[in-house]
Amino acid sequence: MNMRLNRFVAAADGQWQIRTATAIRGEGLPAARALSVLPGGATREAEVWALEGVTSNARYLTAVEAAALREVESPLGRPEATAAALIPIRKSPAWWAMSQDQRRRLVEEQGGHITLGMRYLPAIARRLFHCRDLGTEQPFDFLTWFEYAPQHEDDFDELVAALRRSPEWEYVDREVDLRLERSH
Amino acid sequence: MNMRLNRFVAAADGQWQIRTATAIRGEGLPAARALSVLPGGATREAEVWALEGVTSNARYLTAVEAAALREVESPLGRPEATAAALIPIRKSPAWWAMSQDQRRRLVEEQGGHITLGMRYLPAIARRLFHCRDLGTEQPFDFLTWFEYAPQHEDDFDELVAALRRSPEWEYVDREVDLRLERSH
Repeated sequence: MNMRLNRFVAAADGQWQIRTATAIRGEGLPAARALSVLPGGATREAEVWALEGVTSNARYLTAVEAAALREVESPLGRPEATAAALIPIRKSPAWWAMSQDQRRRLVEEQGGHITLGMRYLPAIARRLFHCRDLGTEQPFDFLTWFEYAPQHEDDFDELVAALRRSPEWEYVDREVDLRLERSH
Repeated sequence: MNMRLNRFVAAADGQWQIRTATAIRGEGLPAARALSVLPGGATREAEVWALEGVTSNARYLTAVEAAALREVESPLGRPEATAAALIPIRKSPAWWAMSQDQRRRLVEEQGGHITLGMRYLPAIARRLFHCRDLGTEQPFDFLTWFEYAPQHEDDFDELVAALRRSPEWEYVDREVDLRLERSH
């Protein structure tokens, strides 16, 4: 098992209650009550759906950006971060056919994705999981995971709205937005 | 099954005879007579070892380099390309901790990896398979595959020797070099 693999499992109960699940683009996901984030390989009884992804090396960050991020980013699991979001995303074949510099330009120089995300740190903690190069067929290319205190929900809405207006998002062909609340 | 997944299977017989198998850095691979390249999921009886990897998007190429490569590159499976090489490679944690611009600089601006490879086209056809983000634990990060006519073996030796002298290769912590001849 790849030690960086995680499973996001929807079921009747779990670590996080699913408040809303919205199909932003393309097909949604089957309705479920709760979500758990499990280490790779772990399974649960009566899974409604499960998505897998690995954490991996950063694909677009420069050294300067990486250092700036490390200064301000927050870890996952903060006690006050009782709100979370799971946003699985698939990008189009046209995205993956582009070269590295073309994708980087859309992500940051034109889209400001990195700069924009940094503006919401340290309030919104973020982790990216990659699915596209797993050995099994996957419905998404990425699973993006965010944790924040409930009072930052409006900031989070602002962040995702800005990303969805960016030129990078013209290449997103499937996206689901799940909002979560930590189970008691 | 990921449609881009391939399995390189060593066994007593197969599509390619293994002429030599050299541990360049770190542990080698168990001795075997022949190798086959199978679509993901396919298995054989009495496998000596098997390595898996997916083809994926280019990680370092610029649009200009990608266009130049497309002009001169060769497809796999040319009738005259009866020689092949499989070179599985693992890079160190220090490599993967670097940012995109630092890795790109080592690959091309300092190492000339892309320019160097291009000098041996169209004689030497090349395909890269990624293993690092598969869901299962893998002994290598990449499987590099080359096909050429036997008279280009010296050119191929020259290419790999130059790469092994490059600063990028200081981050290679395991490498095996298998030379193959197409089975009759």
